[in-house]
Formats: sequence, structure tokens, C-alpha cells
Amino acid sequence: MGSNAGDRVIVCKAAVAWEAGKPLVLEDVEVAPPQKMEVRMKILYTSLCHTDVYFWEAKGQNPMFPRILGHEAGGIVESVGEGVTDLSVGDHVLPVFTGECKECAHCKSEESNMCELLRINRDRGVMLHDGKSRFSINGKPLYHFLGTSTFSEYTVVHAGCVAKINPLAPLDKVCLLSCGFCTGFGATVNVAKPKKGSTVAIFGLGAVGLSAAEGARISGASRIIGVDINPSRFEPAKKFGVTEFVNPKDHKKPVREVIAEMTNGGVDRSVECTGNVDAMISAFECVHDGWGVAVLVGVPHKEAVFKTHPMNLLNERTLKGTFYGNFKPRSDLPLVVEKYMNKELELEKFITHQVPFSEINKAFDYMLKGESLRCVIRMTE
Amino acid sequence: MGSNAGDRVIVCKAAVAWEAGKPLVLEDVEVAPPQKMEVRMKILYTSLCHTDVYFWEAKGQNPMFPRILGHEAGGIVESVGEGVTDLSVGDHVLPVFTGECKECAHCKSEESNMCELLRINRDRGVMLHDGKSRFSINGKPLYHFLGTSTFSEYTVVHAGCVAKINPLAPLDKVCLLSCGFCTGFGATVNVAKPKKGSTVAIFGLGAVGLSAAEGARISGASRIIGVDINPSRFEPAKKFGVTEFVNPKDHKKPVREVIAEMTNGGVDRSVECTGNVDAMISAFECVHDGWGVAVLVGVPHKEAVFKTHPMNLLNERTLKGTFYGNFKPRSDLPLVVEKYMNKELELEKFITHQVPFSEINKAFDYMLKGESLRCVIRMTE
Repeated sequence: MGSNAGDRVIVCKAAVAWEAGKPLVLEDVEVAPPQKMEVRMKILYTSLCHTDVYFWEAKGQNPMFPRILGHEAGGIVESVGEGVTDLSVGDHVLPVFTGECKECAHCKSEESNMCELLRINRDRGVMLHDGKSRFSINGKPLYHFLGTSTFSEYTVVHAGCVAKINPLAPLDKVCLLSCGFCTGFGATVNVAKPKKGSTVAIFGLGAVGLSAAEGARISGASRIIGVDINPSRFEPAKKFGVTEFVNPKDHKKPVREVIAEMTNGGVDRSVECTGNVDAMISAFECVHDGWGVAVLVGVPHKEAVFKTHPMNLLNERTLKGTFYGNFKPRSDLPLVVEKYMNKELELEKFITHQVPFSEINKAFDYMLKGESLRCVIRMTE
Repeated sequence: MGSNAGDRVIVCKAAVAWEAGKPLVLEDVEVAPPQKMEVRMKILYTSLCHTDVYFWEAKGQNPMFPRILGHEAGGIVESVGEGVTDLSVGDHVLPVFTGECKECAHCKSEESNMCELLRINRDRGVMLHDGKSRFSINGKPLYHFLGTSTFSEYTVVHAGCVAKINPLAPLDKVCLLSCGFCTGFGATVNVAKPKKGSTVAIFGLGAVGLSAAEGARISGASRIIGVDINPSRFEPAKKFGVTEFVNPKDHKKPVREVIAEMTNGGVDRSVECTGNVDAMISAFECVHDGWGVAVLVGVPHKEAVFKTHPMNLLNERTLKGTFYGNFKPRSDLPLVVEKYMNKELELEKFITHQVPFSEINKAFDYMLKGESLRCVIRMTE
């Protein structure tokens, strides 16, 4: 167990990614004390997200190894560094891959959650304060990941990337709010904002897309059309409120036309959760003229180009993108947790698998085989 | 003068476009009585808009001649056809190139003004009711234009395309609200919605762009950046509230970078009023991430393709198009007229020229030379 003093190194288990695509290895790592504006937390539960797998495979970016991955998690504050005033030892918290300094123009804007200081940084690999790592093995540093590195019994996170939540909330469920669920759910409820009775198309029926569908269900959408090229995702999607399905492979005509025919001209809202640029274009062009709003969530390839005829816009369609569902991590997450506590949200149905920390590589297998939505990893046996 | 009976043909002067690009000819034309859901009105003032010139030049569409052009105007109802209940003889009205049936999904939506029945139709050239023209010379029909054909002492318009306004409003001023002014002004106040103190970029400083600037001025924008490749437009734009100018030709770097440097990352809102697709892309990419909104107004070429990297959207920018400034013609125009009557709007500064109907071709000359913003044509000598 960690000390409350926060002035000593903790030695604990962490799952280290030594090389791209190779199984993680549980190692004894040293976790340095939190520095200025940092907190050290004990992780109780973490779940695996596609973004972890993407950076573990390291196909599209500069490989940074050895590294401790993981960014969807729930834990308890073990110690706090200098200057941290709104978090205390024992607080129940969710670490988030992006932050909220509460002082920059973005944090002060009602519309943005893209904090200038603590916005997601995929390449940093070290702490903002001193450009150094808090993790080491025999003194040799390991890279951080997204400022969270939750595949460790203890981790150090910038205090601006930590949401303090209701201590009664079950961390094995609400850990999902730290990334995937909020990304999809917020895209619908904060950005697309479908009205009661409206039609919504969701492109991509993975965990993020199903979270977007959950947002549409809660908003009272009358029809939720799921679009995916993998038909095995259709049946399970029904319990997330998806009422109809379109597999682009089943149609000769473009998806936008299929959807326009199903909906008398187009859906009221669409949410794109695949990151495929053709799906983005379809998601935009399938919304109704006059009032349709398309929201882009999925992250595209670096070379992707979004193309459309400007008349599609001039006919009063709206195209918006969102990041982390437009949630401000520290201000908004506690409220989303309350929604779960009030039984407005159903998180359980996203959790298809659970494994102990010692079997973390199974979580990767489930995801790579497309078997899991979310696999929750228990840090304590 | 017309009869109130509405059951006889009126013979009056109209400016007929016999051929593409040739001066209009004042002719005696027969104007048939209004049919079901139509009104016949006496036009008192009409003004020339680029769209008239575009269809007169007939370079980009199927030529339809002989035709009576004109769509920005103010007049008085002379007679009404069967079924018209909310307009009466003597009402002061603005004819509009697009309508509001008040019954379709678009009219019932708060968000759309793209009426399914009466949406702008550039190619029809005849009345909706019976597919026939109400104009003829010696029995030989002339084509209508945009359902308005206001370059005539009398014209017939669908009742759904007629806004009844305050009879005290000066028609020689408020005639501008029928098209250009509302298109630009509404793009800003109804769609871009800049907050007090925000920064706004306006692309294109013609009448529509300056109307968009007027919207930004009234919204309390702190900086209004005008972008145009014609520097002679900068000095006159100052009285429309434009505070700074960017001529893309003066810079080696892209306009979006110039504007980002001027504004610490981008403007809060932009409004594109040229229809040039490169300007559209610049207008989108020059808005600030996190909260920037770009609104497209200008009508592009048929082959134009809007291209951008999807990350520009995912960083929480919004791209919207608008048609007629999102104003619903019958519901909203009377309120815009009241804004003018309350001196909230300044229309006078848009009127750079005035000519009698007999000199209507001078209005075309002024516009083609780029000398005029609006030239108002007096129908009665």
C-alpha cells in the first residue's frame, strides 16, 4: 500500500509495453512522488480502449517504448504534490487523458473542452512539469501514456486531469467514463442534441458508437439507425437502443441514399464513430437538409481529406466535430457519474469481459478478435 | 392603375430580357389575374442583385428568354386569387424568391426555412399552380424569374412568397430586405450568432458581406475583419463596422494563417459571402478551434468541392451553411422591417444609386463596373 506522505518512491506492479505489438509484461516499477500540481493515485480498475491498442501496435506513430499504457480507469488519491488544493488523499477519482486547467481561453469558454495547457498529447511520454517520467525500473525511465498510464497499480497524473467523483460510485463501472463512454455519449447529448422523437444515425457500432446510441436513446430518439460493415454487431446493438441497421456492403447505392429513402430525406442527426473518412462523408450527407446535424467523433488518418459539395452545406446542414464528447473533465464528469448513480445511464451493458491484472493481455486478445466492448481489469486480485 | 377586382388583365410596363446579356427593353406587357393562392401586386421599388445579373448573363445555366427578371422589391397588393386569406388589397408587401407554406416539415421546423413547396426554383420560369406564365406580349408568354419578376409595374407572386409588412415602412429602403440584406445579416445573427466582444471575419465585401458585417456590428463584435481581393472595397466597408482588412493578394502565407496570427489562433466566427470554394475553405479553417463557427453563404460553382482535413472539424470547429440567412420569409421579415423602423438597422448606407425604371439598364452598368452596392429602381416616374 502507498504512503500518504507522498515523499517516497512506491514500488508496485505495472504492465510494461516493452515493444510494439508484444504482450505486456508485469514488472516491479518505481513510481516517484507527485511533483508540483500532480497527484499519485492507486488504480483500482482500468479498462482497455482501442487507443491503447493503437499505440501499442505503434503502426501510425513514432514508437515510444518501454511505455505504460492505459487511460480508462478509476482510483483513489494516494498523495498530492505541491500546489494541489482541490484533491486530497482518499478522494475517489477518474484520471482523464485530457485536462481542464480552468484558466485558459478554452476552459473559460462554455463551448470548448480543449484546454490549452492540458489538451491531449499523444507524443509527450513524460510529465508536463519537468519533462521527466515518474516511472522507472532500476532507475531507468519508462514512458508515460496520455498523461495517465493506468496499467499500473500506482500512477502519477497532473491534477488538472483528475475528476473527483462521488465516493459511493462503483469504480469498476464508472471507470468507463474516463474515455470511451463519454466520447460517444457526449457527442450525442452535448453536440448533436437530438430532440425527442427525432431520427439518429450512428456510424460504427463499437463501444463509442454504442455510447452515442445510448445518448440518442436517453434523448428520446424515435429511430436509431446503426451503420456498420460488421453484421455481427447488429444483434448486440439492440440493447443499446439501435432500432434499425444498415450494412453498406448490402447495398449498391451509397449509404446516404439508403438512409434518405428510409427517412424521407435524411436523418435529423448523425454521429460518426469510425474515423473512416468515407463514413464521415456519408454521415454528413445522410442528414436532412434544413436542419440536419452531423457530428464527427472518430479520429481519421493523417492523410484523410473530407470532401463534399458545398451545396450540401448551403442547404442548411451542419457539420461539427467533437473531442471527448465536449465534456470538461473536472467540471462535467462528476455530473455524469451522478447520472449513473441515478440509474439514468446503463454502463453494465458495455462491460463484456473482466480479468485480473495478471491477465491483462487477455483484454488485448478480446479486443483484437472483436469479441469485447469493454474488458475491465481488476488491479487487486 | 390596376383594378381591385383581380379578374382582368393589366397592361403595364415591364423590362424584358429578350436575350442573354443584352440591355433590357421596356415593353407593354399583359399581366394576367392572380390564380389560386396567388397575389398580383404593384411594384413601387425594386433593386438589382447579382443574381439578376447572373441569370441575365446566363453563362452558368440554361438560358430562359424572354424573361422578366428582378426579385428584390417592395409593393402593394392589387388583387388576390382564390384561397388567399391572409393578404388583402392594399397591403404593403415584400415579394421573396423563396416561400413559406407554413405546412411542410421545413416550415414546421424551427431550424429550417427551406420550404418544401415554395423553396427557391431557379429553372421553373412559370407559376407553380398551373405551370403557366402570367406575363405575355400579344398573347405570347414571357418567363417568370424566381417566382417574383419584379422588373415590372405589376407582377404575380405565390401568396406564400409574400411578406406583409408595416405600411409605414418606406418601400424604397425596405425593398432591400427581400434578398441581399437578409441573406448576409441573417447569416450572422441567425446562424453564426457571434457573442458580444467576439471576433468575426467576413469573406467578400459586396452587399451581402457588408450586411453580414452589419449583423456582426449589431451583435457587438469587437473586431470585424474584412477579407477581399479588391482593396477599393476596404474604405467604404468601414462604415459597415469592418475594423480591419486582409487582402489575400498581399500575403504569401494562406489567409487562415494570417488571420490566426492576428487573432491568437483564429476568429470566433466567420461568414463566407463570395461563393469561391477556396474562400469557403479559408473561412472554415480560420476559425478558432474549440468554439469557432464558419457560415457559408455564397453559392458555389456546380463542380466545386469543399475539402479539408477532418482534424479541423474534430478540434471542435463547426461548419454550417445558410440560405436566405435562415429567415422564414413570411414569419420573420415583418420583424426585420420593425428593426429598421426602430433604427436598429441602417439600410440607407447600402443604397449607392437610384434610377427611374426607364433607366434600369444603368443599374446593370453600375453593378458590372463594381460601382454600386445597391441601385434602387423607382417604378413610378
